[in-house]
This record gives sequence, structure tokens and C-alpha cells, in this order.
Amino acid sequence: MPNISKKGGAMPESPIRKLVPYAEQAIKDGKTIYHLNIGQPDIKTPQIALDAVKNLSLDILAYSRSEGSETYRIKIANYYEKNNIEVTHDDIIVTTGGSEALLFAFGSIMDADDEVIIPEPFYANYNGFSTASGINIVPVISKIEDNFALPPIEEFEKLITSKTKAILICNPGNPTGYLYSQEEIQKLASLVKKHDLFLIADEVYREFAYDGHKHYSVMQEPGIEDHAIMIDSVSKRYSMCGARVGCLVSKNKTVIQTALKFAQARLSPPTFAQIASEAALETPQSYFDAVIEEYVGRRNTLINELEKIEGVKVAKPNGAFYCVVELPIKNADHFAQWLLEDFNINGETVMVAPAAGFYSTPNVGLNQIRIAYVLNKESLIKAVNIIKEALKIYNN
Amino acid sequence: MPNISKKGGAMPESPIRKLVPYAEQAIKDGKTIYHLNIGQPDIKTPQIALDAVKNLSLDILAYSRSEGSETYRIKIANYYEKNNIEVTHDDIIVTTGGSEALLFAFGSIMDADDEVIIPEPFYANYNGFSTASGINIVPVISKIEDNFALPPIEEFEKLITSKTKAILICNPGNPTGYLYSQEEIQKLASLVKKHDLFLIADEVYREFAYDGHKHYSVMQEPGIEDHAIMIDSVSKRYSMCGARVGCLVSKNKTVIQTALKFAQARLSPPTFAQIASEAALETPQSYFDAVIEEYVGRRNTLINELEKIEGVKVAKPNGAFYCVVELPIKNADHFAQWLLEDFNINGETVMVAPAAGFYSTPNVGLNQIRIAYVLNKESLIKAVNIIKEALKIYNN
Repeated sequence: MPNISKKGGAMPESPIRKLVPYAEQAIKDGKTIYHLNIGQPDIKTPQIALDAVKNLSLDILAYSRSEGSETYRIKIANYYEKNNIEVTHDDIIVTTGGSEALLFAFGSIMDADDEVIIPEPFYANYNGFSTASGINIVPVISKIEDNFALPPIEEFEKLITSKTKAILICNPGNPTGYLYSQEEIQKLASLVKKHDLFLIADEVYREFAYDGHKHYSVMQEPGIEDHAIMIDSVSKRYSMCGARVGCLVSKNKTVIQTALKFAQARLSPPTFAQIASEAALETPQSYFDAVIEEYVGRRNTLINELEKIEGVKVAKPNGAFYCVVELPIKNADHFAQWLLEDFNINGETVMVAPAAGFYSTPNVGLNQIRIAYVLNKESLIKAVNIIKEALKIYNN
Repeated sequence: MPNISKKGGAMPESPIRKLVPYAEQAIKDGKTIYHLNIGQPDIKTPQIALDAVKNLSLDILAYSRSEGSETYRIKIANYYEKNNIEVTHDDIIVTTGGSEALLFAFGSIMDADDEVIIPEPFYANYNGFSTASGINIVPVISKIEDNFALPPIEEFEKLITSKTKAILICNPGNPTGYLYSQEEIQKLASLVKKHDLFLIADEVYREFAYDGHKHYSVMQEPGIEDHAIMIDSVSKRYSMCGARVGCLVSKNKTVIQTALKFAQARLSPPTFAQIASEAALETPQSYFDAVIEEYVGRRNTLINELEKIEGVKVAKPNGAFYCVVELPIKNADHFAQWLLEDFNINGETVMVAPAAGFYSTPNVGLNQIRIAYVLNKESLIKAVNIIKEALKIYNN
């Protein structure tokens, strides 16, 4: 039997994957599970986006252009302009989700064994994309005590080698919910200019900024036009995770030309979803106002409830819809499994994502979990109560 | 300014990309272009597939499972059974087009600098996927005189090194239109067993087999269950190129488990398109009968017309909807550009794909073009007449 590749062997499993059989068993046993573990929002997709596909009349579901249709890219550029980001449609390549945009970025700027520095905890799939691309992630630990703010810039600088090609941030962050300030972006900008690196920013949660904070994009920072690469996606903005439409944005023409070659090889992004995404750009502001209000309410409820539990430490998120929570336990992997296997209140239990999968440094975050507040407030209250009661028993 | 990667620099451009500005100029000049250069069929998508999306009622466009929805995979397995391919839904991972299936296959079985042997001319984007994956293509030349039949198996064997991990075929072939016989597949099966290699078969044109020939899949060949990896796609079968849905199929459990990790990193294939693809499986046989009849008619027309031109050599295709044609010229790149820039009959000209882009060996196939017969017969007759008249002038 021929062997699989070392790369294939090294590809990480999803951090919640190993919990799935326990969840399936719990459901078979008749339990109800509150899913705090996934980033699939329960928010409705804008009707205008769904209708665009419903009302479509076409005879042939044809390829679009590899870089995405021109009309869509022009509208994306308009959307960015409203967000104080000045780009033209030529600076944009439409991709199959933010995932593909990140793969194109890695492929365009990094060769085998090159390094990208990422503050951790970070979106777990960055591990998969880096392994698939044959590159290495060099983590900088950010701390729950600081709400996962940007680590001191000297911590980044210490890690820069001749292999370092880029710094990658997720802003606001999954799993941290931390929104970087303009000052933090400027510190990173100085660093990438000084060391001639790329600055990749995954800004798919741009709209999800709370408490009056304003999102500041790497594309707004003057002087790093050739360094900045923005990753974007319609998945969370319009609750269209299944569309698989994102984009890669940069004013660096060589980066765009290079990424376009990767795009040409895979022919085109999905046509139906691109049409829905183009229509989604007409979503009225009232939709976002309602969504933000809902998420702020959920976050406040969640944090309130969590802070009532003794020994729990929470990083208060000011963006996205995740938070990292430190529990008074030793091993969140075991606790998460135990919740599904051995605990319930009136037949209800909770599924959480152990946070260790969001760290690249071994043995960090072992007592932390990530909670996605993609459930309504009532469910969140019940779910946190289950965690609270579970901890009492688990710790005895 | 930070540099792009060596990999990014090495990514090939689409072989017709450099002709696009000349085509755009020709259109601006008011010329009509017969596009023989692209694989986008003019055949209608089955209404049942389009209706499935039109009649969809969903509130949230959610992620599907990373491996594709279970109902869809079960139906795909049924479809294969009808094609005498015995697999279960667990042997299938739904991908974003055949492109992604091939990327997952390369990633799962090959590491940097590993080698895959491919008979050339081959689908040009294999070059892009191999560069993106950091692996090397080792070509075996197949000949227009043999209709691009499988080269002698000793030619493959000569090229096998410790780096060789797989043999890749496209059956029936793009750009050759050659359908491999059962005997040819068996020769390859013996070879991969002897040298413990994978055999990847891109079978996206399975239905397009003419003149009573029957497609024989690598998945039908006993004894190579652990070696065979099939790449498939809905793009050509249902004229749904813009769906971006394909799949990777293998009975090798380790391959499937490994490919699944790549699939998990990018979360899910596109949801709308997956729904359309599931419905497309209900397409009646009459649709395919009509499509095959149409393509056979086109092929016969095309070959007939081409054979009337002095000095033209044609490999008669018995599958897919491409053929490679040798012209009495030195350089098809130049001729293709000249057709767009300097030639027309009553304002009409032709765009063809120079075949050199489908070879990996330098300076082979320079006088060949690929023709996709994705136009109706009347247009094909006009297009070939333009080539005929053009050659008279070009060669003087």
C-alpha cells in the first residue's frame, strides 16, 4: 500500500473533531446539546441575498472570471470605500471563502519552511493552511489577563529571522474577540516596514465591533500599501457561511498578479454564491444594527453569567462573537468530553471548544475554552448554568 | 517592498491568458470571435438542478459538513453504482470543483519535490496545482500519430524514481479527447502495484465517450483499491462549471481520512451548488443522450472540416469535447495571436488555445492547437473555414 505524505500526516484535525463522536452519542442518548463550540451563527441571512439566487434566471451555470465578476468587485470596492478603505476593483480577487484567500496569500508570499508570526490563541485553521502550504507558524503568546491585546512589539521582533515573511492577525479575533486599536495596527505597521515583511489581516469580523469601538483596517494605515494583505469573507457579515465567498485585497500589484495565477488554476469562485454575495452588499444598515445589538446583548449576558461562577476568568470581547474563558480545571479537553458523556441537567448539556487547539505552543491554554455566542440569550443563560453546575460536580 | 515567493513566481499563467488582450482588442474593433479556446460548454444546465436552488427555502445559508452532506454523498455513491463503480458514501469527499479534489490528492500523498508522472499533453492547470503543492510533474510524451493513446508502459517505468509517488491520467483526456481502454488501465494498474504508487484518474468527462466505447474507471479495476484515487466534478457532466462542486473518491481509508483534514481546514464546499448538484443527479438519461448526440455530431463535423485542410493532422477524439490539431505552421502561439490581430473574414475570426501550454516538456507541440468543440455545428464550420483561409495567407 502506498504511503500518504508527511504533510498529510501532519495536517491537524479540527480541534473539536475528537469531541464529535461523544456529541453524536449524547444526541443518540436523547440529550439536548447547547452548541457553544461552533462559529455558525443562528442569525438569518439577508433576504435580499437569498432572493437574488431564487429569482435568478440562467440557462447555463457558467464559470465566472477567475478573479471574480467585475460588477461584484466594483461593488466590493464601493463597500470598502464606505468603510474608509480606498481600493479599486483591481486590488480585489474574489475567492472561495476567506480560507482560499489565506491559502492564496500564503502561496503568493511564502516558500517551504518560511515563517509567519501570529499572536496566539489564533483561528485553529491557520494551522491547517500553514501545513498545507508547507510553511511554519511562529506564535507570540497573548494573554487572557490583557484581554488578548497585542503582545509587546519586542516580542514579535525577537522572533523575526531570515525565514520570516509575514505577520498575520485576525481583527477582531477568533477566538479572542479582541479588536485591535489603531495604535496597535500602527505598531505592527512600523514593524513590517522596518523588517520588510507582509502584514496579513483577517478582517472577516469587521462589522462586529462593540461599545463604540471602531474597526481600523490595515488597508487604512498609510505607508504599508505594499505590505498589507487583507483577507475578507461574506460568511459572518451576512450569516452566509455556506456561500464560500471571500476575497483577497492588496494594493501591492505583484501580490495581486501572483494570487491571480493561483485563482486561474482553480478556474473560478462559485457562481451562485457570488450572485448572492453581490446582492448581499445591498443589505440595509438596519440589518447590521439589529445584529450588532443582538450580539452585544448576548455578550453582556454571557459575560455576566460567566462572572458569577467562582474561579472563572473571562477575557471581555469587544468584537466578533467569541470569547476565551479560563475554567478552574486542569484539562478542558477532558472536561468538554465529560460534559457530553457524563453530565446533564434535565437531559441538557453543553458542547464547548477546548482552547488548546487555538494555541500553537504546546501546553498553553489547557484550562481554557472558546465560547461562540451564536445562541440566543435564553439558551446562553441555560448553557452557562450547566457549566456552573457541572464544575461543582467535576471538581469533586 | 517585500518579495513574493519563488512558488508564486513559478506559478504558470493560463496558456490562453496572454491572448486575452488581443481578443479584447479584436472585440473592441468590432470583430466577432469564435471561441474554440475554452472548455465552457454552451449546453444547457439540467433544469432540475437550477430549480432545486430556485425553489430552495432556507433562512440561513449555513456551512455543510466538510466532507459534503451525507444525503448528497449517498446519492453520488448510487450514481457510481449505476456506472459499475462500487463505492460507499464514506469513500467520497465532496470538494470545491475537481480542482480542489486534485489539490487535496496532491497534498495527501506528496511532499515537497515528490514527483507525479503524467502523459502529456495534459490539462494545463495540472501545472498550477503541482507548483502550488510544491511537487514536480514528470511528463511522458504521447503522440498525435497514435491519437494520444497511452505511451508504452516502459516509458513510464523508465521515469520512476524514489521520488515518484503517483501516476495521473485524465480519462477521457483534456486536451486530447482520448479515452483509455480497459487494457490500458490494466497496464497502469500493474505498474502502480509493482512500484507501490498511487494512480490518480481525473474522470470528469466520464459520460463523454463516443462510438460505442465504454468508459473504464480506475475504480473498477480490481486489486488497486489502495492505489486508486478518482477525481470527479459536476462541471462538464451537467454543464455546471460555475457550481464548483466535485469530489475525491478512494477506497483507501487513509487517503480519505487525510484528505478530510484538508477539507476540514477550509470548512465546507459551497452549499447552494451542492444542493444543485444533488438535484442534478436526477437528470434523466434523455438529457445525456441528447448531449452525447450533439457532441458526436460536432466532433464529426469538426474533424471532417479540419481534414479538408492541407497539411493539418488531427487526433480523432473518442471522448470529452476537445481535440488537438497539428497545423502546417511553426508556432501556434504566434498564429493564434495573428488570427486575433491581423485576420478576419467579414469581421469574423477565431480564438484557439496553443497546445504548447498543455505540454510540460519545452518545445513540444509548438505547431499544435487545442480545439474545444463547445459551439454548434454551423459555428464550427465557419470557424474551421476561417482557420483554413487564414493558413493560406499566414503561410505566404
